[in-house]
Amino acid sequence: MAAKKIGKQTVKLQNPPSIIATASIVGPKEGEGPLRLYFDEIIEDEFFGEKTWEKAESKLMRETFAKVLKKANKTAENIDYIFAGDLLNQCVAANFGLRESGVPFFGVFGACSTMAESMSLGSLLVDGGFADNVVCITSSHFCSAEKQFRFPLELGTQRPPTAQWTVTGSGGAVISNKGGGPYITHITTGKIVDMGIKDVNNMGAAMAPAAIDTIVTHFEDTGFKPENYDLIVTGDLGAVGKEICDELIREQGYNISSVYNDCGVMIYDRKKQDTHAGGSGCGCSATVFAGFIYKKLLEGVINNVLFVATGALLSTTSSQQGESIPSIAHAVRISNSIS
Amino acid sequence: MAAKKIGKQTVKLQNPPSIIATASIVGPKEGEGPLRLYFDEIIEDEFFGEKTWEKAESKLMRETFAKVLKKANKTAENIDYIFAGDLLNQCVAANFGLRESGVPFFGVFGACSTMAESMSLGSLLVDGGFADNVVCITSSHFCSAEKQFRFPLELGTQRPPTAQWTVTGSGGAVISNKGGGPYITHITTGKIVDMGIKDVNNMGAAMAPAAIDTIVTHFEDTGFKPENYDLIVTGDLGAVGKEICDELIREQGYNISSVYNDCGVMIYDRKKQDTHAGGSGCGCSATVFAGFIYKKLLEGVINNVLFVATGALLSTTSSQQGESIPSIAHAVRISNSIS
Repeated sequence: MAAKKIGKQTVKLQNPPSIIATASIVGPKEGEGPLRLYFDEIIEDEFFGEKTWEKAESKLMRETFAKVLKKANKTAENIDYIFAGDLLNQCVAANFGLRESGVPFFGVFGACSTMAESMSLGSLLVDGGFADNVVCITSSHFCSAEKQFRFPLELGTQRPPTAQWTVTGSGGAVISNKGGGPYITHITTGKIVDMGIKDVNNMGAAMAPAAIDTIVTHFEDTGFKPENYDLIVTGDLGAVGKEICDELIREQGYNISSVYNDCGVMIYDRKKQDTHAGGSGCGCSATVFAGFIYKKLLEGVINNVLFVATGALLSTTSSQQGESIPSIAHAVRISNSIS
Repeated sequence: MAAKKIGKQTVKLQNPPSIIATASIVGPKEGEGPLRLYFDEIIEDEFFGEKTWEKAESKLMRETFAKVLKKANKTAENIDYIFAGDLLNQCVAANFGLRESGVPFFGVFGACSTMAESMSLGSLLVDGGFADNVVCITSSHFCSAEKQFRFPLELGTQRPPTAQWTVTGSGGAVISNKGGGPYITHITTGKIVDMGIKDVNNMGAAMAPAAIDTIVTHFEDTGFKPENYDLIVTGDLGAVGKEICDELIREQGYNISSVYNDCGVMIYDRKKQDTHAGGSGCGCSATVFAGFIYKKLLEGVINNVLFVATGALLSTTSSQQGESIPSIAHAVRISNSIS
């Protein structure tokens, strides 16, 4: 059998699993953004018929799970494992949103890298023959995140230009051992990188070094170059982090500018939507992938994507105690052909 | 190739990985308990030389990681992946404790089921040929957990008899594709179970149905019976939850009493140590496994163990919003022989 592990941090999948369906539900603000036509559902208000934002976020996850099963023409009985997580303390959006699923459940925490982490683990289990179908799903919610991580929304606190806007939304994917693609062909798993940045209003700068580390490692491990990709897309570096990533990766000998974008930049219209540096949150890369990127892959508009979700692994307590922001980025290569 | 997935929720590993080393560091209270001779290190006070309990917990994880590598005669370069998580918001004990490791990192959140969840995913990746060596590690800390989940310690709040005591400690294991056992032969992955219990001072009762569900599913999937085990051990049901589990599992046709124990019951002397219903926390099952159970396996005193770590998937916010306590249990079968 060919080597599975290649280089330092990459696995080349021997029987590349297919992403047979995705689903996305987003909030009203995301529904006014440039990608609005690509999401499956846009909710009318942040409460989504629930009494609290946390319950609304769980409902986003629950309904996205139901939707992605339906689109994949599967029932919960066909799913071997769920991989899910979110930003709320103790990942309660996932735990409560998916508690009625009846599916063996692996909770993951990678902050905003969760979608790529889930897809990495899910595709390894499918490739290894341990599962036929897995669901990878995550969510975030602007109001529950602001309440938990920052200030009460009612204060109307001012935000600096480097701050990002947590996406309200949930994105999910069904990864299967049967199907005609798009295929997950390689995964490059990130290690924790901490360059000492402490500004919680500049997560993009904190996470950019992790993204660079994982992308460069992916190139080195696989031999792929920027020109082998139609799209290299980070999760939620936002405008500030994207610029840092684009620029500093050149010092490592790779020019990705012509194919590089960031889900946090893509999801909002920065000129019209007052979201400062752009979107963030687990739901940012999850909905942009499930909504926009997956459909462009299906249409054949793009054929080779490196999806690099990025996570800032801090808590309010760690910041209050003067700690810097450890970050991580996980990369998943998705292609319309099995290379 | 033989079927990997057997029954509803179980994988039979084709090339059962070995647990080649474990390490455990515990707090002063655990160091006065009946298992004190089995732990690798007992710290003198809950601060462990740090300024905060959270930093102390990260240090527990960092030092346990170093210790388990040393005992396995490995360096970080030999480790393909770390699987780690903990109870703190956004899993900061793991994120900060392991940020210097330089090892590809999968963060997991299964509350107190984290050790079994990590070992499940780690052994699947080794069995699948994606990794040669993985480290599975978790921690909890009495003071950081009380502060986060309950009351300020300084209040000296009274606790009801059903309440449990969060273990201060970290336990880790190196799982490898080489080695002479003990082997991980089967994993049974739990689904979320919620029987509507809302009493956060009675987690044992909330988690017992999840443990029963996973143990019964394991028996049904594998054909194993209680008599095939020397030890069936739940993670942290404590005295109350253990009794519920022991009794209610009989209604499902399985009598496990003669081989059944619970890490939360084992770690403290309930008569002398004033810990009410017993131990809890990710570190409870992790240190009892890494400290006591693993050594008994090596000695051949026990040869077949079903390790069933249990997690309560709530947060303070979910309880404040009137929610019940979803729970989960993941089971790992460890044996001195490859069956």
